[in-house]
Amino acid sequence: MALRAGDSQAAMTGVKEKVLTLDTMNSSIRRVEYAVRGPIVLRALELERELRQGVKKPFTEVIRANIGDAQAMGQKPITFLRQVLALCAQPDLLNSPDFPEDAKSRAEHILRACGGHSLGAYSISSGIQLIREDVARYIQQRDGGISADPNNIFLSAGASDAIVTVLKLLVAGQVQTRECIEAVIRFAFEERLFLLADEVYQDNVYAEGSQFHSFKKVLTEMGSPYAEQQELASFHSVSKGYMGECGFRSGYVEVVNMDAAVQQQMQKLMSVRLCPPVPGQVLLDVVVSPPAPSDPSFAQFQAEKQAVLAELAAKAKLTEQVFNESPGIRCNPVQGAMYSFPRMQLPPRAVQHAQELGLAPDMFFCMSLLEETGICVVPGSGFGQREGTYHFRMTILPPMEKLRPLLEKLSQFHAKFTQEYS
Amino acid sequence: MALRAGDSQAAMTGVKEKVLTLDTMNSSIRRVEYAVRGPIVLRALELERELRQGVKKPFTEVIRANIGDAQAMGQKPITFLRQVLALCAQPDLLNSPDFPEDAKSRAEHILRACGGHSLGAYSISSGIQLIREDVARYIQQRDGGISADPNNIFLSAGASDAIVTVLKLLVAGQVQTRECIEAVIRFAFEERLFLLADEVYQDNVYAEGSQFHSFKKVLTEMGSPYAEQQELASFHSVSKGYMGECGFRSGYVEVVNMDAAVQQQMQKLMSVRLCPPVPGQVLLDVVVSPPAPSDPSFAQFQAEKQAVLAELAAKAKLTEQVFNESPGIRCNPVQGAMYSFPRMQLPPRAVQHAQELGLAPDMFFCMSLLEETGICVVPGSGFGQREGTYHFRMTILPPMEKLRPLLEKLSQFHAKFTQEYS
Repeated sequence: MALRAGDSQAAMTGVKEKVLTLDTMNSSIRRVEYAVRGPIVLRALELERELRQGVKKPFTEVIRANIGDAQAMGQKPITFLRQVLALCAQPDLLNSPDFPEDAKSRAEHILRACGGHSLGAYSISSGIQLIREDVARYIQQRDGGISADPNNIFLSAGASDAIVTVLKLLVAGQVQTRECIEAVIRFAFEERLFLLADEVYQDNVYAEGSQFHSFKKVLTEMGSPYAEQQELASFHSVSKGYMGECGFRSGYVEVVNMDAAVQQQMQKLMSVRLCPPVPGQVLLDVVVSPPAPSDPSFAQFQAEKQAVLAELAAKAKLTEQVFNESPGIRCNPVQGAMYSFPRMQLPPRAVQHAQELGLAPDMFFCMSLLEETGICVVPGSGFGQREGTYHFRMTILPPMEKLRPLLEKLSQFHAKFTQEYS
Repeated sequence: MALRAGDSQAAMTGVKEKVLTLDTMNSSIRRVEYAVRGPIVLRALELERELRQGVKKPFTEVIRANIGDAQAMGQKPITFLRQVLALCAQPDLLNSPDFPEDAKSRAEHILRACGGHSLGAYSISSGIQLIREDVARYIQQRDGGISADPNNIFLSAGASDAIVTVLKLLVAGQVQTRECIEAVIRFAFEERLFLLADEVYQDNVYAEGSQFHSFKKVLTEMGSPYAEQQELASFHSVSKGYMGECGFRSGYVEVVNMDAAVQQQMQKLMSVRLCPPVPGQVLLDVVVSPPAPSDPSFAQFQAEKQAVLAELAAKAKLTEQVFNESPGIRCNPVQGAMYSFPRMQLPPRAVQHAQELGLAPDMFFCMSLLEETGICVVPGSGFGQREGTYHFRMTILPPMEKLRPLLEKLSQFHAKFTQEYS
């Protein structure tokens, strides 16, 4: 009912100071910096508010190219996913002729595994048993039969979602070759590191010749001693891939070779947050166990999935092309995921000016871009770029008809900015 | 991609030790104890597995009377809530003649406030603006017009849900009189404490003469200096009340008189976990802004809500009666919430035997109860009971036809247990 924050102060001069202040609060929170939703995004929100209030700007809308939010950018949800969810949410619809039979039987199957046959009941802390079994089967198929134990799988939303988020700040989102993964595993083994693999982009592989390799599969195929000893946690999510269902906050982590006592502690930690949101667990189930070829929804499901992935691949290609035609910008092929991470040259006077303002040079560039064009991208300085280089991170998600003008506007702004500070 | 856990060890004797062990892991996690989902619940899960495998037990099913999970206990969800959710999940249903117009217009209204008009897009970290505005209006009405600012309201799921959970461990779930709340506020003000009010049971008030008073309302009506200076955070949730929608992980916290700089830090902390699950935000919106008398769904909504609350009140009464007729058990009137917290006498030999086993005496009782009857309740020792007293916590949620035999079985077991150790 009440927490004491800081010591009570003897000095009482009229109005009391707040109990909870920057000085008395948990100092570790003060130190958190979050690149994707930092000052740039706060300013973007302010600009949107000003636009709504009729304040004149050199642009008419703010374009959120900072975050991988597919459906906010107009991507349509996959019909079958939402059909199953609607049926689970409102089981009266099981009598409706407007839903295909496979969606209905899937919904019934899932509801039977829910407490009280309802989405509104808590699940067990690690997530619904049936869904963890489906996840295990999915991983097993993905990895060509290497077994996966439902007891090693934890469905996630809050805490582990935050872990994934923090990890993204440490690692840039490219497809890794099999050789590269093997080298990482050997390195981790020799240096006694616990491996964390952010594999949320396993469906988003666009570049020709690129292929997704799971850490678990490579680890297992490397054999002894790696297969039985190297500790690994692998993350996946319904927010990315062809699904883009960010708002449901749903995903899972599979742990491999974890110490049994630590895994019990992890179970305890999970149980404190009660359970992952159940609607998101339902979507996850459909993702890891999609309609089979004999099911009535199979054709539509596949067509929608392929259409989303094909459009993302085309946008990845376009992004690379337009940026590489711009002087002073270099963009590696976007092999996977939903982001480009172009490197840009910034003139020395701009760097100097940024430093006078107390800003990282790429932060200064991104802030200027936002103010003048309404385009919101994230400075590379939040992602650990090499000293003396400047990058920005931008999604490839805007719809095709918006993406080309967006890329051109950004390139033109960079040219103008370069000229202005030369 | 990789975190170093502990220092690398020089000694290499064949098989390496795990990197992550109880010794090298974050020690603060080891210390977490969680009463509601501790050893009793783990054992209950095991027993359920054994029952499924055909192992003979003195009972045929495990009854989860440990946690306030209404829908798992058979409570039906409120139709209008689920209609709006199904419409939002699958907007094709907006053309279906099977949904009332008010559910449709509500769903359209909410979808317009979602990124990309989809539940699958991230919301801003503190939750959808429209929904926070509806929450503010709801609080304002609840408190007789005292203003509530949407900017002080944060929709919650993961992190703050854990906060609420921890708080529940500190406080037993009774209705507070207005005088009691005033005394708490005066005490907090003098001792310079930050007040945290767990108000998730604001709809669950059963006892005659009992009434819900919000901390914010009392604080405001107490006037200067409390109204402008006492810091407060008040929590609410869709898991309790007449809704019982635990699986959606949805709620909010309103902060009052918080230091502006600290509130910015809170915003930052929220933004790291991206956003609360959007389906739960939708349910919350309907809860704080239910159908109005002129709406077609009003009558059904009210009837369902009143029926749920009336049944809970009857179950609260029954629980009190049956326990108070049992020698050695005393149960205060269940004035609100979803739990009874009866005090029981335990014979000295049982206490001694428990101590020999290294268990708290009420843990020993609850574990024996579970093993012999399949009834799962939580020992009071997890909730900070007075030294030398013994309690257990039990929900009043099982359906009426199951609750009476359950209460009687529990009372009989207590009598047998008492005799056995006398």
